[in-house]
Amino acid sequence: MNPLNARNIADLADVPRRALLDTCLEAAAASASVFTRLYPDAARASATHADAMRAAGVTLTPLAGLPVSIKDLLDVGGETTLAGSVVLADAPPARSDAPVVSRLRAAGAAILGKTNMTEFAFSGVGLNPHYGTPRNPADREVARIPGGSSSGAAVSVANGSCVAGIGSDTGGSIRIPAALCGIVGFKPTARRVPLAGAIPLSTTLDTICAMTRSVEDCLLLDAIIADEPLAVPALPLAGLRLALPRTLALDALDPHVAASFSTALTRLSAAGARIVEAPFAPLAEAADLNKFSGAESFSWHRGLLAQREAEYDFRVARRIRTGETMSAADYIDLHRRRREWIARMEAELAPFDAMLMPTVPIVAPPIAELETSEQEFFRVNGLLLRNTSTINLLDGCAISLPCHAAGTLPVGLSVAGPAMSDARVLAVARAVAAVLA
Amino acid sequence: MNPLNARNIADLADVPRRALLDTCLEAAAASASVFTRLYPDAARASATHADAMRAAGVTLTPLAGLPVSIKDLLDVGGETTLAGSVVLADAPPARSDAPVVSRLRAAGAAILGKTNMTEFAFSGVGLNPHYGTPRNPADREVARIPGGSSSGAAVSVANGSCVAGIGSDTGGSIRIPAALCGIVGFKPTARRVPLAGAIPLSTTLDTICAMTRSVEDCLLLDAIIADEPLAVPALPLAGLRLALPRTLALDALDPHVAASFSTALTRLSAAGARIVEAPFAPLAEAADLNKFSGAESFSWHRGLLAQREAEYDFRVARRIRTGETMSAADYIDLHRRRREWIARMEAELAPFDAMLMPTVPIVAPPIAELETSEQEFFRVNGLLLRNTSTINLLDGCAISLPCHAAGTLPVGLSVAGPAMSDARVLAVARAVAAVLA
Repeated sequence: MNPLNARNIADLADVPRRALLDTCLEAAAASASVFTRLYPDAARASATHADAMRAAGVTLTPLAGLPVSIKDLLDVGGETTLAGSVVLADAPPARSDAPVVSRLRAAGAAILGKTNMTEFAFSGVGLNPHYGTPRNPADREVARIPGGSSSGAAVSVANGSCVAGIGSDTGGSIRIPAALCGIVGFKPTARRVPLAGAIPLSTTLDTICAMTRSVEDCLLLDAIIADEPLAVPALPLAGLRLALPRTLALDALDPHVAASFSTALTRLSAAGARIVEAPFAPLAEAADLNKFSGAESFSWHRGLLAQREAEYDFRVARRIRTGETMSAADYIDLHRRRREWIARMEAELAPFDAMLMPTVPIVAPPIAELETSEQEFFRVNGLLLRNTSTINLLDGCAISLPCHAAGTLPVGLSVAGPAMSDARVLAVARAVAAVLA
Repeated sequence: MNPLNARNIADLADVPRRALLDTCLEAAAASASVFTRLYPDAARASATHADAMRAAGVTLTPLAGLPVSIKDLLDVGGETTLAGSVVLADAPPARSDAPVVSRLRAAGAAILGKTNMTEFAFSGVGLNPHYGTPRNPADREVARIPGGSSSGAAVSVANGSCVAGIGSDTGGSIRIPAALCGIVGFKPTARRVPLAGAIPLSTTLDTICAMTRSVEDCLLLDAIIADEPLAVPALPLAGLRLALPRTLALDALDPHVAASFSTALTRLSAAGARIVEAPFAPLAEAADLNKFSGAESFSWHRGLLAQREAEYDFRVARRIRTGETMSAADYIDLHRRRREWIARMEAELAPFDAMLMPTVPIVAPPIAELETSEQEFFRVNGLLLRNTSTINLLDGCAISLPCHAAGTLPVGLSVAGPAMSDARVLAVARAVAAVLA
């Protein structure tokens, strides 16, 4: 049995790192299309070093010698960052690690490899025509999507290769695969984690963040990548005021999602949480306001598109091209309208400790259905991103927690809040997770 | 004699406020087109209150009861902000004072009135077809431009109506009129002073700031409007490393500007400053990068333009319309190119304590020449903004100090530095001003 099945990183404190790492490398080798690059030698060296330090009487930091994966959007020094594409294959190698990678190395992490992703982080589905689509480990019979864009990152955690997967979240790219694969994914307030050394999708909405197996691990990873340990208070669930938005978030739920989410709410209410429906009418405007990534990615990609558009995933090129015709004045207006929208949302959130919603309204669909129908791809992609992307628009933070019964397809429950409410949202999530466990 | 001819606000400590204010109101009443609104009753009430507090044994704060003017771009509660236009005449009144105005009132200032400006703060010239062009007090024979856009603000200080004039600087709108009128104008790093309650020109480049009679007064006003007293060290001039850019800044100088600036440099060198020429080649790209205000102002104005373009100053409407066709991707690129430009400029500035340049390359031209020739207007406007606008592009700070011989037309010498170097730039300016005085 893989020792990573221990619930928290803290529970691994006494486990020898080198033996654990070899087990993780076996799990990584057994999974197709999850890693685009593995670093077995460097990872073993980190694990061996951790064991040697412990043998010499040094108290290890929690992450020392434990395997972590890096989404191939982030720079690892000496290597070309591909971001799931082939058009960057001949780009120069990164001169140094992204700050987030440096921080993980300084915390002792064994960087196991770089993970597959949707091309340039577009779409919440997880298909990649160049490097294959990693299969969701939650269903052994049907090959289902892992969710995206941080598809490989989620699977690297869910299949026992890594204790954490670093990814990015522009519209839900951490929380969607976390929900579909049955793990924990936290999107912090964007400004808390440096974006340097990451290929941008939307400079306005991009967030660098981590997927883990538990809320406790999430706190640990967040402190490292944000270089700031949050003071997360212990909040009793009884008496917490949790908002349930009447607009958008509960529309068109798959029956299994609806039942799982509803059961979770019942248990939270029984434990004393005050779950209150509230209109949150501005959520109806979210899709219309969420138009930053088109022009922002076109600005980054237009040179490459002009040369090599045929080598792009056609779905991605099409999305990027939507930004070509936006005017600067419309873009500036969009920023102003977003600020006003955030103010209205924050006013409605103010009486609550956090907001709850199903992370995604559906369970992971079979890969084959989406590969064969472009229409179905875009329909599912819209559904996957619908709830999560509102939190990026809010400049907020949100964590997706598993809320499904054991043995059923994974369903995520999101606890969300406005900008810089990260400590409170994580405190609520800890109380919620304790009831759902 | 107007007691404001005392060099510093500190020298007015013992002067009774009410009598001083009446003298200032007379000076204000004697000048045409400088104020668009006067508040004699409220200003007298502030001055009377300051005298009463002093009589009751209270130690006054330095600005208590002293007259300050507000550029009509900033909200004064209860009144419509016109920004030098007629198209806003039927806009609703401001609900509250702009934060900068509140801070001045809290510091005891007597708000004397709102000052005239170029329409919507466009142009460095100072012409206003709706409310007239204030005459530059430096020349009693020829009616010369005051410079803009904070034209009335500069004249309100130069003619003895106010101890300070609050204005804004997007490309030089504080420093140009300060230089042409022979006073001190400081543009701080933009983020240090709140922009709330000001009609925007360029949300990227706008800065709210003050004109004064001396560097010491500038420090006092800056501490109030930024709500942050800077720790400005006393730096000896001897040994200061001051950069003189070989690119752009010294081109096409009017002979009087060239002679005045050169004399100032000679005196600074004689006092021990090390003035070093350096290439600063990126300055040649500044004009091409300084394209933010078009799209940013078009975003704000397009509704009004669609309804009432004929009521705009045609020169202003033309400038705003230049932003109509910019694409969002070009605008986003512009931000990225600016960041790269700033990094190159900051690297070249790093070995120096500050950079010196003539604030404007010409002396104030006669008003008549610019009113009659559109071509001459745009030529002069380009010259006026040429040097100062590079500091807005740099996100930096700069202070213009008078450096001309008494009895000659005013010439400004700018001491400039990168973002957040405000304390150092002001320390250098204090040392420089002591030599030039």
